[in-house]
Amino acid sequence: MGKLCSLRNLFVLSLALNASFLMRVMYKEGLGHSINDIFMNKREGCLLVSSSSSSPCATATATDTETDEDKIVNLDHGDPTMYENYWKQNGDKTTIVIPGWQSLSYFSDAKSLCWFLEPEFAKQVVRLHQVVGNAVTEDRYVIVGTGSTQLYQAALYALSDHQSDEPTSIVSAAPYYSSYPAITDCVKSGLHKWEGDAHKFKKPGPFIELVTSPNNPDGFIRQSVVNRTGGVLIHDLAYYWPQYTPITNKPADHDLMLFTVSKCTGHAGMRIGWALVKDRVVAQKMVKYIELTSIGVSKDSQLRAAKVLEAVSDSSGKEVCERDSFFKFAFHSLEQRWKQLREAVKKSGSFSLPEFSSGHCSFLKRDFELQPAFAWLKCEGEIEDCEGFLRSKKMITRSGKHFGVSPKYVRISMLDRDAMYNLFLSRLSAIRL
Amino acid sequence: MGKLCSLRNLFVLSLALNASFLMRVMYKEGLGHSINDIFMNKREGCLLVSSSSSSPCATATATDTETDEDKIVNLDHGDPTMYENYWKQNGDKTTIVIPGWQSLSYFSDAKSLCWFLEPEFAKQVVRLHQVVGNAVTEDRYVIVGTGSTQLYQAALYALSDHQSDEPTSIVSAAPYYSSYPAITDCVKSGLHKWEGDAHKFKKPGPFIELVTSPNNPDGFIRQSVVNRTGGVLIHDLAYYWPQYTPITNKPADHDLMLFTVSKCTGHAGMRIGWALVKDRVVAQKMVKYIELTSIGVSKDSQLRAAKVLEAVSDSSGKEVCERDSFFKFAFHSLEQRWKQLREAVKKSGSFSLPEFSSGHCSFLKRDFELQPAFAWLKCEGEIEDCEGFLRSKKMITRSGKHFGVSPKYVRISMLDRDAMYNLFLSRLSAIRL
Repeated sequence: MGKLCSLRNLFVLSLALNASFLMRVMYKEGLGHSINDIFMNKREGCLLVSSSSSSPCATATATDTETDEDKIVNLDHGDPTMYENYWKQNGDKTTIVIPGWQSLSYFSDAKSLCWFLEPEFAKQVVRLHQVVGNAVTEDRYVIVGTGSTQLYQAALYALSDHQSDEPTSIVSAAPYYSSYPAITDCVKSGLHKWEGDAHKFKKPGPFIELVTSPNNPDGFIRQSVVNRTGGVLIHDLAYYWPQYTPITNKPADHDLMLFTVSKCTGHAGMRIGWALVKDRVVAQKMVKYIELTSIGVSKDSQLRAAKVLEAVSDSSGKEVCERDSFFKFAFHSLEQRWKQLREAVKKSGSFSLPEFSSGHCSFLKRDFELQPAFAWLKCEGEIEDCEGFLRSKKMITRSGKHFGVSPKYVRISMLDRDAMYNLFLSRLSAIRL
Repeated sequence: MGKLCSLRNLFVLSLALNASFLMRVMYKEGLGHSINDIFMNKREGCLLVSSSSSSPCATATATDTETDEDKIVNLDHGDPTMYENYWKQNGDKTTIVIPGWQSLSYFSDAKSLCWFLEPEFAKQVVRLHQVVGNAVTEDRYVIVGTGSTQLYQAALYALSDHQSDEPTSIVSAAPYYSSYPAITDCVKSGLHKWEGDAHKFKKPGPFIELVTSPNNPDGFIRQSVVNRTGGVLIHDLAYYWPQYTPITNKPADHDLMLFTVSKCTGHAGMRIGWALVKDRVVAQKMVKYIELTSIGVSKDSQLRAAKVLEAVSDSSGKEVCERDSFFKFAFHSLEQRWKQLREAVKKSGSFSLPEFSSGHCSFLKRDFELQPAFAWLKCEGEIEDCEGFLRSKKMITRSGKHFGVSPKYVRISMLDRDAMYNLFLSRLSAIRL
């Protein structure tokens, strides 16, 4: 055993050296994922596996001579690529090696309620919440999903009334996350039906209210607004992390809370989310839904997510220097971006942004104003279609109409790569209405 | 560049040594996924993150003194752990190293129709089909899904009539895959409705017929059975690989074909499947469904699946010796298991199995009878509830009633680990009705 241990130590050392070297080589040579912004990349990656010349993609051409002026600034999606800089500098600890014979079985822990949940992932979820203090994990079931998107559907499935002839009403206060209506109604479910703005909701019968806090798109902290019985709540806390909003003294303590790796650490490509669920029967139904619709969740990504969450927790200790702390890196990046955005908006004079009050963050031990993952921008003056207007300036954003409000608003991602964000800033600040 | 190249060669060599070493250490010490059979493992892995003593899991106790006689033989699921033996012996090539900064973006190829598809995975899918000769890939879109289960739902979404007030009828000839009804109707969709056995289908209006070939549960090669217009077909070809059935001279050439890594290589825990789709609009709708329900598919698992499929293709060359060929390993394992099963059934005299005719396999260059991934066992004599009878003998199987036929039948997985399968054989052969 002693021999094996020292062999293992040697191996770990050697692997760490290699992993660090690998990353340097890949980074230098542009192997692996390209660091060019995929939105700006005009190469057509044709999906059609074609040996004929009739490919529908054949007309697309490469435009490598494209200048900054020609580039489309696409901030429609909340693609969290801003975080790449941190992981390139600090990612060595999260390099994962998966041997070929691993994860053959469907099961992670066959006797568990959530049989497809990797125990190590669950452990790191709990640890991170304890480190940050943003949510209660005691007496909660951890359920893993293919992103919080699948968990949202699992929650609808679990909380809807399966016996009723009428679908359960699903509501959320406008402006609400633009994907909620489409996901809720995509297969015309008889279990649940999107009923729009919770402020205007008057339909009788059971309902589910979605409380997104901080809210997507506008970043505000929220509470439920429907003031009657017969409803249950789903708390979407994807953005309740200290880079976006002060963490209060009291950890969130709701019946069903959704989180996602994408918005916490930036690893959207993993497609890993988790739910903290108080009620056993609700947890069982959510597991059933994920079993039915995807027979569990990628083990590879769960194992990788566990490593990433562990690194985030490790980087949050008192002894860690500022630049090594994930949340401090993320906080300062967003702080700077919001400052720059408010300056650009001021310079242009054509737009407005929400104003946030300051709060004390028990995790970062300082006061600050919210600095959301999205900017909720309003076109001032006579422009009614803000999205269309910005599109004419080669900036792709998401119109307020998708969030249940006026098209004078647009949602803009604050989490894209530096090059894209800076181009957006310079283009926005130059606009004069 | 020359210097970098030799540094890289050195690194690759060092990494290969380390990976091989890692696997030996993990294997010896039982790190990573345990090689004990999870079904037999009685330790309760409690999901409830509890600091209180009121955990609902607290009553479960470890029974490490369990003998073979006490063990529950669970062959209900088609958990493909039989393949672990091959990957433990040949898995070095498929070890994957993922650095911490990889796969942050949602996008794999933003300009592609299937924007979340990793190009390397698509490439290896096409190559494997070309090597095996089991499906046409020319002029097809490759769509990746969280297992073929998600792709099945995406196909229903894409092929159902969204304008109609009536849901599209979904049918499949009995015995059909037991999960089809539950998946189809799980959220009481208004787009599609399970209508059962395709042989008995008489309802007017549009329909989708599912053709599973080789069939799950009984292993037979199938064609569509509904003989009228107004329908479209989904071909579920999860088991159309040379370890299960002879590959014919003519590759499968259907409009929509589903495959999954789970049943091809055994990596069920990856949750990766793919569809080959002829029509561009159908492909677009399937992509939309996966975008809506999970915003894409785990990149980590796609990258890993690409490596595994590549290794399978590489192991299929003419120069590869018999024991290194994945498909030959899988074929011989199943050949032996089917031989043993037929002997056990004969010895018992209480059961019967389907009889298959022989066919020529263009890939393995030999004639053989089908050797399905499931045994479709019938209780002879007066036993009506075969599943209940076997359960009383501590063998968990799936009743024929879930497949739309008589409970005199049960489905039994042929892909479990050796220890489990051998225990099943000895228990079955000892039964005298």
